[in-house]
Amino acid sequence: MFRDFKLAYDRPVAIQVRDYVKRLIIKGALQANQKLPSTRELSLLLNVSRNIVIAAYEGLEDDGFTYMVRGKGSYVATISGGASKMVQFWQPDWCARMNGHAKLAVELDHMKNGFRAERTTISFTSIAPDEKLFDIDNVRRAFLDRMALEGNVLLNYGYAKGYRPLIDYLLRYMEHKGVNTKGKDMLITNGFTEGLDIVLSSLRRPNGSVLCENPTHNTALKLLKLHGFEIKGIPMEGDGIDLHELESALSERTYDCAYFVPSYHNPTGIVTSPEKRLTLMKWMAERQIPIIEDGFNEELRYSGSHVAPLIATAGDGNGVVYLGSFSKVLFPGLRVGWVLADRVLIDYLESIKRARTIHTSTLDQSLLYQYLHNGNFEKYMKKARAEYKRKYEWTKQCCEAHVPYVRMTGDGGLHLFVAFEEGFDTRELLTACSRQGVFFTPGDMFFTGEGEGRHTMRIGFSRVTGEEIEKGIRIIGETARQLMH
Amino acid sequence: MFRDFKLAYDRPVAIQVRDYVKRLIIKGALQANQKLPSTRELSLLLNVSRNIVIAAYEGLEDDGFTYMVRGKGSYVATISGGASKMVQFWQPDWCARMNGHAKLAVELDHMKNGFRAERTTISFTSIAPDEKLFDIDNVRRAFLDRMALEGNVLLNYGYAKGYRPLIDYLLRYMEHKGVNTKGKDMLITNGFTEGLDIVLSSLRRPNGSVLCENPTHNTALKLLKLHGFEIKGIPMEGDGIDLHELESALSERTYDCAYFVPSYHNPTGIVTSPEKRLTLMKWMAERQIPIIEDGFNEELRYSGSHVAPLIATAGDGNGVVYLGSFSKVLFPGLRVGWVLADRVLIDYLESIKRARTIHTSTLDQSLLYQYLHNGNFEKYMKKARAEYKRKYEWTKQCCEAHVPYVRMTGDGGLHLFVAFEEGFDTRELLTACSRQGVFFTPGDMFFTGEGEGRHTMRIGFSRVTGEEIEKGIRIIGETARQLMH
Repeated sequence: MFRDFKLAYDRPVAIQVRDYVKRLIIKGALQANQKLPSTRELSLLLNVSRNIVIAAYEGLEDDGFTYMVRGKGSYVATISGGASKMVQFWQPDWCARMNGHAKLAVELDHMKNGFRAERTTISFTSIAPDEKLFDIDNVRRAFLDRMALEGNVLLNYGYAKGYRPLIDYLLRYMEHKGVNTKGKDMLITNGFTEGLDIVLSSLRRPNGSVLCENPTHNTALKLLKLHGFEIKGIPMEGDGIDLHELESALSERTYDCAYFVPSYHNPTGIVTSPEKRLTLMKWMAERQIPIIEDGFNEELRYSGSHVAPLIATAGDGNGVVYLGSFSKVLFPGLRVGWVLADRVLIDYLESIKRARTIHTSTLDQSLLYQYLHNGNFEKYMKKARAEYKRKYEWTKQCCEAHVPYVRMTGDGGLHLFVAFEEGFDTRELLTACSRQGVFFTPGDMFFTGEGEGRHTMRIGFSRVTGEEIEKGIRIIGETARQLMH
Repeated sequence: MFRDFKLAYDRPVAIQVRDYVKRLIIKGALQANQKLPSTRELSLLLNVSRNIVIAAYEGLEDDGFTYMVRGKGSYVATISGGASKMVQFWQPDWCARMNGHAKLAVELDHMKNGFRAERTTISFTSIAPDEKLFDIDNVRRAFLDRMALEGNVLLNYGYAKGYRPLIDYLLRYMEHKGVNTKGKDMLITNGFTEGLDIVLSSLRRPNGSVLCENPTHNTALKLLKLHGFEIKGIPMEGDGIDLHELESALSERTYDCAYFVPSYHNPTGIVTSPEKRLTLMKWMAERQIPIIEDGFNEELRYSGSHVAPLIATAGDGNGVVYLGSFSKVLFPGLRVGWVLADRVLIDYLESIKRARTIHTSTLDQSLLYQYLHNGNFEKYMKKARAEYKRKYEWTKQCCEAHVPYVRMTGDGGLHLFVAFEEGFDTRELLTACSRQGVFFTPGDMFFTGEGEGRHTMRIGFSRVTGEEIEKGIRIIGETARQLMH
């Protein structure tokens, strides 16, 4: 015994000794009421100082694994539920116990079913920010600033609605986008995704159906499907949703809500024109269909004048539920998003949020608040916009030079959307490209209908270097041409 | 114009100027194509330096609110969706659009419906840790350590399953509690609550019913109800669940799963005895009822030998789903919990987690990991246990001296559970005590049946000082006696 002790170099030694003895007790190698070696003996056996062993023995006693007999030493306690008292427990077939929701969640989990890009490859699959742009020093400063002010408070329970200073900041932020916040309120969520999930969880659905752009954000599609909605997708034109198709869809039936991504639409990158926004708003109001507005990448405008979100156009109307997030422009690791909507609705959503996750990480919220408050966001965005704009233009240029596309869209943001001729199969293209170490996202996963959009693909460029962009796009283009012949 | 500009003292001035001008544009006070004052003029008008105005004007242009004409200056851009172009948007009646789930969530939201303890009062309602014990310096150190190692990575997207080093740490941690992790896997969640919500979301329920202790954790009751389960509560005895009642419940029908809190049961504080644990496990295995084990406050043992969780007793059986969290002992503001269960089940849960919140805050996870890795947890627990033990004993002593109870339970943890004679009403007692500035949690909210447990109450002592404990308990006792006469 005590021969197989090995030290890990970067963990307190007393804890390693304590854990080592715990393992011996749990395995039954040390039996109940057996005397442990004296601290002096064990320190020699393990080749650690005697003080270390004393601390380890204290830890064992604190955790109830040993007891001390005065003047005699440490003895192993009678611990319950160790290996020696094991019940022959059963093996449920968990697959058989999963419900439709769980099975659908796996089926729709593209992260599990998709191609895995390797480290050595060129991958256009991500639309996450480029971490090389992160201003870590300012993040560190924001953390230290906030901890110094109220560290104890931040580490204890917070409120379901969110961290108050952040809510106030974001309300002002939305006001600066032209939103009238009267009669509205805000809920902080674990990112956009939780916000949409909670909103969808709350809605009555007398019709069971929802309107959206087609194609659209695949996470939203996934959630709409998981919530059992029938999805009516409206095709996209260069300046936003096809109004004729929308009109015809509206004349067919009624819908419980609409989900729209008016700015830098995912995946097409199209910005809905101000005119279309107004028509959209008018029609939805006439038919009393609430709008869930995804504020996706609104911040990543590279040129042109400010376009206000739909919720700003609604004035003090309360028919728009706005979902915001900085995940694509700032730090996605901080899981913070927000729902801005009618006060009455937010009150319901708050209770659902509390039931599900109590509240969003206070540390994430307070760090983000302090970072914003310190004015870091503006400086960061200036740098990020310049860098992404450069990549955006370069990717566009490379696609124009090398890719035999029929249509390419993307007015900003972190990706372009490419359509080949109908009949071309980007899944096949992906298989061929992946053999050459190049990956992209096949477009069909963004479409509402089965098998639609097989001739499209999304190219995310945010995390690819300029050199790789050229090399990767060239390979995609050449491979596409080969497949066409 | 420009007369109502007011400087806040702790935010970059250029940003304040930019936001001020944005507001004027959004309000329509500055019209499209109107020329802004020169930077020199505005610096005089607002009484800030000219460089500040230059930076503010740059920000306005970056955000698309203005455009620059070379040699002439800055002009207001035609922004869409401002107040001037407002649609007369509609006002949905959101209450009428809420479904049963949303309404039930509000109804079961005790935070909204309960008494609000004021700051100047003595409140025994909380069982959150005492933030005065938090070792902020170590938290700060853990953050800086981790950020220095991989700050960029931490701020970008992580994995739905969780932060790998934390998962590995917690797997070892559970092994030291005697758990055989073979064939098992772990999912990191936004605290215990999300873990339970996700597990309940995944289960088929051919029977639609669940077994649990009665009373039990109110958040779990809330989630079970929100998921539409029929709840069969089994009364508690001093050493755990009443086996006769359990046997009779098991003979009546079958259940889809059981939810148990074997250690420092919430709200009774009872630790289920090793013998009862074994019987429980045997019976559930025989009837093939999976167990959801809530590891609530396992760490807050003040005396006696180590009691292994149920999942440790199951060996390599996979019928126990263990939900862990440090929220009651460490920092609840960090929303981190874990589900330890069969590998197949975790794979399903991972997809549900990804669909709902993408992943748990990487910052929270990595900070917690580094804090644990640095060995801070052990030192903190030593201090916290000593302090809570002192409060536990003092509260018990005060209750014994002043409160006319019939039964008092609590073998550890951060609360005691007091039962008066049947017929006594602790809601009435609470109303009377609240007038004297003393609050506690009425026990009925922990019971599975309507109107049950009206004669009980939970006393959380973790955040109350020794002096207040005595004063508060004395008031509770005296008021109870008065109500009895």
